[in-house]
Amino acid sequence: MVNVAILGFGTVGSGVAEVIAKNNQQIARRVSNPIEVKYVLDVRDFPSSPFADKVIHDFSIIENDPEVDVVVETIGGAKIALDFTRRALLAGKSVVTSNKELVATHGYELMQIAKEKNVSYLYEASVGGGIPILKPIRTCLAANELSEITGILNGTTNYILTRMIRAGLSFEDALKEAQANGYAEQNPAADIEGHDACRKICILASLGFGRQVSPEQVPTEGITSITLADVDYARSAGMKIKLLGRAIRRESDNKVCAFVAPHLVSDESPLANVEGVFNAISVVGDAIGDVMFYGQGAGKLPTASAVVADVMDAAKHHCYLKNNSWEAGGDDVVYSVEEIRSRWYARLGDDAAVPGAKALHAAGAAKGESAWLTEEKLTPSEVKALLDGREVKSLYRVLE
Amino acid sequence: MVNVAILGFGTVGSGVAEVIAKNNQQIARRVSNPIEVKYVLDVRDFPSSPFADKVIHDFSIIENDPEVDVVVETIGGAKIALDFTRRALLAGKSVVTSNKELVATHGYELMQIAKEKNVSYLYEASVGGGIPILKPIRTCLAANELSEITGILNGTTNYILTRMIRAGLSFEDALKEAQANGYAEQNPAADIEGHDACRKICILASLGFGRQVSPEQVPTEGITSITLADVDYARSAGMKIKLLGRAIRRESDNKVCAFVAPHLVSDESPLANVEGVFNAISVVGDAIGDVMFYGQGAGKLPTASAVVADVMDAAKHHCYLKNNSWEAGGDDVVYSVEEIRSRWYARLGDDAAVPGAKALHAAGAAKGESAWLTEEKLTPSEVKALLDGREVKSLYRVLE
Repeated sequence: MVNVAILGFGTVGSGVAEVIAKNNQQIARRVSNPIEVKYVLDVRDFPSSPFADKVIHDFSIIENDPEVDVVVETIGGAKIALDFTRRALLAGKSVVTSNKELVATHGYELMQIAKEKNVSYLYEASVGGGIPILKPIRTCLAANELSEITGILNGTTNYILTRMIRAGLSFEDALKEAQANGYAEQNPAADIEGHDACRKICILASLGFGRQVSPEQVPTEGITSITLADVDYARSAGMKIKLLGRAIRRESDNKVCAFVAPHLVSDESPLANVEGVFNAISVVGDAIGDVMFYGQGAGKLPTASAVVADVMDAAKHHCYLKNNSWEAGGDDVVYSVEEIRSRWYARLGDDAAVPGAKALHAAGAAKGESAWLTEEKLTPSEVKALLDGREVKSLYRVLE
Repeated sequence: MVNVAILGFGTVGSGVAEVIAKNNQQIARRVSNPIEVKYVLDVRDFPSSPFADKVIHDFSIIENDPEVDVVVETIGGAKIALDFTRRALLAGKSVVTSNKELVATHGYELMQIAKEKNVSYLYEASVGGGIPILKPIRTCLAANELSEITGILNGTTNYILTRMIRAGLSFEDALKEAQANGYAEQNPAADIEGHDACRKICILASLGFGRQVSPEQVPTEGITSITLADVDYARSAGMKIKLLGRAIRRESDNKVCAFVAPHLVSDESPLANVEGVFNAISVVGDAIGDVMFYGQGAGKLPTASAVVADVMDAAKHHCYLKNNSWEAGGDDVVYSVEEIRSRWYARLGDDAAVPGAKALHAAGAAKGESAWLTEEKLTPSEVKALLDGREVKSLYRVLE
């Protein structure tokens, strides 16, 4: 018997309990020991839940119960979740989490504790919801030197952009629709300003390239300034606007550049056809070439599916998994986004020509505006110098 | 030190040696022991290869060398490869293979030997080349009951279909081009008649649903009868023709229906946008929903990447992996494709109406022909009854 304690009985936590109960036989066929939920920790009670009798309010019961093997942390944030995760690991329990903020900001520290105590700290559900991505990177692609990871990492923003592209909704209307459908929070800042995607690309970059990349090292731009004019101009060039998280390794010194920003993506790219709340992550390795992982990047059961798979892994390997962690971070881990060259899309508040750029034409273009695609790949300061003194309404990279 | 013997120094085998040598440091960071190629078994010599001094011609040297931990079988076929695999497992060595024919036909037997000898038999490279798919199914999706696996499993046929769709080449010309580019063999039967896709869907169905599904249980239709008229009619309906391998679990009795056939796929489906030699596999689970894995389904280094990842796994876990195998097959494993309902596309040698079907119109349609999409989902015998007595030139399912 593997006893699990779930911290936080919200959407994901209750989904974890549900998946363990519903697919019990399936799970038992695949691990030697049955998995059972022993405790659910929450500040609330859930009198009508089938797990009502497991609800407790005091973490020290879990911490001090030697029968608890695996702690599932689905509280979120980096405050109490950090404290409980530290204490659970120090008590010799493996911890499984869906908490991207905690992994992105304190991953290295928590992995070090796990290593010292010879237990697992597993976090598949923190990126891409249920999409298998972190374990495939650390196992199936383990023979590769990776060079780039690029993904549509946030379903809320991808839903909004899809509705702007497909239905011609304005950003504001698409956001309202997303909120009405439960795809966006009432305070949507973490999604639409790119912070959620930032945390996820930090985790992908840290695992894929081997050293902690932290949110403050990742320039992050959201989607709030994208207009329907931009959508139309992109369409006229055979492209779609997507919010991408990218992490690029520089061969010469192994430093990594990670950033989050809207990009124009060619309709021919598999990433352009990822619609609605779906996520997709493309990984490039020296042997494998380009592989892509696609699925629902959030949601109760998909995310719970990833958590439970990690619980099963923790149940099988009562030990620290070497290939599941990364080394300490530092200023020498990253290089500047200033060094990344791209072709650029620019929408300007005048219609004078841009040297070395192709004019775009869209049906609904506003008078006195113009939009351009540069022919050459330029650094951010080169493109800014090119546009110096002119009113720049939008400036986005093209994904090559 | 983990010593590896490579059986068969062809495209994949030499790629495996190359990846192990090139990414040695990367690999050593991820497994505790360095991995080294000790022997290469082939009937030929390779005097100019960096591995020339490892080439041997007698399998018993490998079989009897206690220092060999992992045997990589990249011979192909189910004759000598079967004999060597059996003997290697019986000698207590883990075996890693890219040989889809062997896994699809003798997988269960070989897994049983591996279990008895407490070693691994790993075969990630047998499906989807380098795309991580089998390990994610057996680990990351392990908390799910799967209901369907559908994939573009053969790069050669997908290349041919892509060239017919994109460049308007006839099947014959597209095949010749594929052969000229090295994407199709001089004898292309195994690809274009669907046998390669059949073996892969057998492996996916066996692993995903838990019992051996064998090629003779899988009705298989290739792409040789697809014409440009079909491509045009499909386009007029907003669809593309793709060769799909499908495995569908029936909830009521857990039986599986697996088959390979051309399908019309909506342009909106991620599968429709998988082009050229790329492969993609979509998996549906009760918790995860729909996830898709995409990448190069063949090729020297991508396939070698998957083999080496399995070697690293075998090196770490010197034991039989329970979740890596399936149970014995039998007639009670499968149910008939006759029970699978679909909408159907039919191209007919006359232009009389088809009751309950929508007429398609394509610019280059031949006189005296017509093409139809049924509105209702029908079984194969229902659609055949509907078309009884008429000349049926093409009859393909629509993927829903």
